Amino acid sequence: MTGTNSRTVSRRGLLTGGALAAGGALGGAVAVTAVGSDDPSTHPAEPVAEVGLAVEPFHGTRQSGVATEPQAHGAFVALVLRPDTDRAALGRMLRLLSDDAARLTQGHPALADTEPELGLLPARLTVTFGFGPGLYQAANLDDRRPPSVAALPEFRIDKLQPRWSGGDLLLQICADDPLTVAHAQRVLVKDSRPFATVAWVQQGFRRAAGAEPGRTQRNLFGQLDGTANPKPGAPLETAVWVPDGPAWLRDSTTLVVRRISMNLETWDLLGRTDRELSVGRRLDTGAPLTGTDEHDEPDLTALGPDGLTVIPDFSHLTRSHVTEDRLRILRRPYNYDGVPSADGTADSGLIFASYQADITRQFLPIQRRLAERDLLNEWTTPIGSAVFAIPPGCPEGGWIGQQLLG
Amino acid sequence: MTGTNSRTVSRRGLLTGGALAAGGALGGAVAVTAVGSDDPSTHPAEPVAEVGLAVEPFHGTRQSGVATEPQAHGAFVALVLRPDTDRAALGRMLRLLSDDAARLTQGHPALADTEPELGLLPARLTVTFGFGPGLYQAANLDDRRPPSVAALPEFRIDKLQPRWSGGDLLLQICADDPLTVAHAQRVLVKDSRPFATVAWVQQGFRRAAGAEPGRTQRNLFGQLDGTANPKPGAPLETAVWVPDGPAWLRDSTTLVVRRISMNLETWDLLGRTDRELSVGRRLDTGAPLTGTDEHDEPDLTALGPDGLTVIPDFSHLTRSHVTEDRLRILRRPYNYDGVPSADGTADSGLIFASYQADITRQFLPIQRRLAERDLLNEWTTPIGSAVFAIPPGCPEGGWIGQQLLG
Repeated sequence: MTGTNSRTVSRRGLLTGGALAAGGALGGAVAVTAVGSDDPSTHPAEPVAEVGLAVEPFHGTRQSGVATEPQAHGAFVALVLRPDTDRAALGRMLRLLSDDAARLTQGHPALADTEPELGLLPARLTVTFGFGPGLYQAANLDDRRPPSVAALPEFRIDKLQPRWSGGDLLLQICADDPLTVAHAQRVLVKDSRPFATVAWVQQGFRRAAGAEPGRTQRNLFGQLDGTANPKPGAPLETAVWVPDGPAWLRDSTTLVVRRISMNLETWDLLGRTDRELSVGRRLDTGAPLTGTDEHDEPDLTALGPDGLTVIPDFSHLTRSHVTEDRLRILRRPYNYDGVPSADGTADSGLIFASYQADITRQFLPIQRRLAERDLLNEWTTPIGSAVFAIPPGCPEGGWIGQQLLG
Repeated sequence: MTGTNSRTVSRRGLLTGGALAAGGALGGAVAVTAVGSDDPSTHPAEPVAEVGLAVEPFHGTRQSGVATEPQAHGAFVALVLRPDTDRAALGRMLRLLSDDAARLTQGHPALADTEPELGLLPARLTVTFGFGPGLYQAANLDDRRPPSVAALPEFRIDKLQPRWSGGDLLLQICADDPLTVAHAQRVLVKDSRPFATVAWVQQGFRRAAGAEPGRTQRNLFGQLDGTANPKPGAPLETAVWVPDGPAWLRDSTTLVVRRISMNLETWDLLGRTDRELSVGRRLDTGAPLTGTDEHDEPDLTALGPDGLTVIPDFSHLTRSHVTEDRLRILRRPYNYDGVPSADGTADSGLIFASYQADITRQFLPIQRRLAERDLLNEWTTPIGSAVFAIPPGCPEGGWIGQQLLG
């Protein structure tokens, strides 16, 4: 996780508007304390101002927003390139957007920022760029497209809507403050206008910063979501990052974004035991039905008194279970909660987002097993789908995509 | 402000699921430290877990969510009563919803909570009930309706849409955590179904908890918004609360909710000086153009070298300016940021929410002056409008509205 790289910027300098001066320098860098324990007495105290002033790096060999400890708010903005946006124009666009992102993530307004006061609190803002299949075509570089970055096969559970699907360029904008996300989205969409139109925007949320530090995320079904993620360190390295290849491939990854509608109306009719059987885990602790702790290894062969497996063979856990790190995916989902209909029917669900080195090797086998048979399918429906390559990061003065397009 | 009443509940008890047991008791009450200073060195450290576990009172002579320090997230849910929801049914509905709110705000799941794990982190949740004109009619108690709680007169600047206007019962749901708001909204809407349908829901945000403690809120134009609010203590008392009258009126207030679309496209074309002139304040500090500090008293008669007032007579500041506390309104707005159109046009604005003892005495004169002539009208359009009485609070074991309907 890049959380240990987080820095805070000078509150005094920023809030007095000092940072608005050209090149306003960042103040003293203070390490943000990592927290993960459950016991409040062991939590180091965290000054409140750090929520707004905490900074994630923008420059580096890999993009932020992937292994970064997920922020509370996320906007996924998918753009479609205008017909005349070719390789050269893409270079101009990505230089501009990289510059915007480099500034905003560090607590500086963008160069042509018309609301500069809204650019001063980064709140761990990250902007992660994703390249859809259409971007490679527009640049006439389809031979450099990672082969697994292509429209997914159709699954029989899919009810995909064009309004939530596809896209040539993705901007994944995440921060612990919703105003920061809104402002970054505004700046980036404005600067994209000469080159692209907006295909779709999905806005989502997780627990607020500091609400439940170090805990696995819950979705709107009440389930813990992300327990099986690869652990930081070597497992995450293996699962997420491309280790070698040409410069435009090394230190890249891929992203699958799927909008999963969750039918709260029928889910809420289901008893607690049935819910736990369909997931394969306890709802309260997230422990597999064969264990007591969230991170206990599930025993998929353990039999109950009825001679059936304790964890049903068609449970979500069993169907999505992988043990090798190179087959795992890194889930980084956000909840969405729209406006209920007049009769109170919820418009809720999950912006499923998974990072993996290779979609074909990692995501597809899991997704095929889930689509074929997963008890949870009864209450969930994929209504949007998109895939992107996440190119490597860039050094200071560089721009995202330069290894590919430069 | 009721912030000083905030308590935290036992993290250990909640997160181990202990609170799921019937009547799970609250743990030790710890005062949340109030912060307001700009200097980080003077900020008392706040343990991170307090964001999720901080509690606002539900029971009391007055409802929470009015003078309560605004939380980061707010959902305004307006319901329309079903034709057969009479006074007796309203009593049943409000008993049920009050019970839900009393539990959820204190970190307990609702009685029939189907996602009880989502009810454990209150994050300063408040649920504030508002009664629209239609509720008094349905209860056959129109003679007890505060006279100023009636549809506002039409203003020439209005372009009101039915989808954002009116409503018989309002649920204002606010918390520092977006998942907490989503869950409370779900529970309350579900339990309302036998009695009402959903007219509209407006979801908004402010700065995250701890992002910028003690600062006035900024809107998406980048302006400080709420500088002129009555100060806590006697001024707020005078402006907001009805001091006497029968039990259903005393300790009540009123709420005006207006959805104000903000045209970022044209606003962004405006130079900084012109923006400051139209507001009457500096964008960076929020100081009036005749002062240097946000809270300096504006000098509306000061003349510039050109012989014109330094603060333009048609500025937002001048047109909305009041000096008597009994004429002030308490603004408690939330930003909204929808999905931009294909060409990148923003769908942004403000969920304007103002509390005042009497709409006719306080809100209407200000609104009339603004509608008549306010430079900001060029870039803002009211597209929704609703008014509600905010009845008094209730003691433990009581329910909101019992003084009126019981």
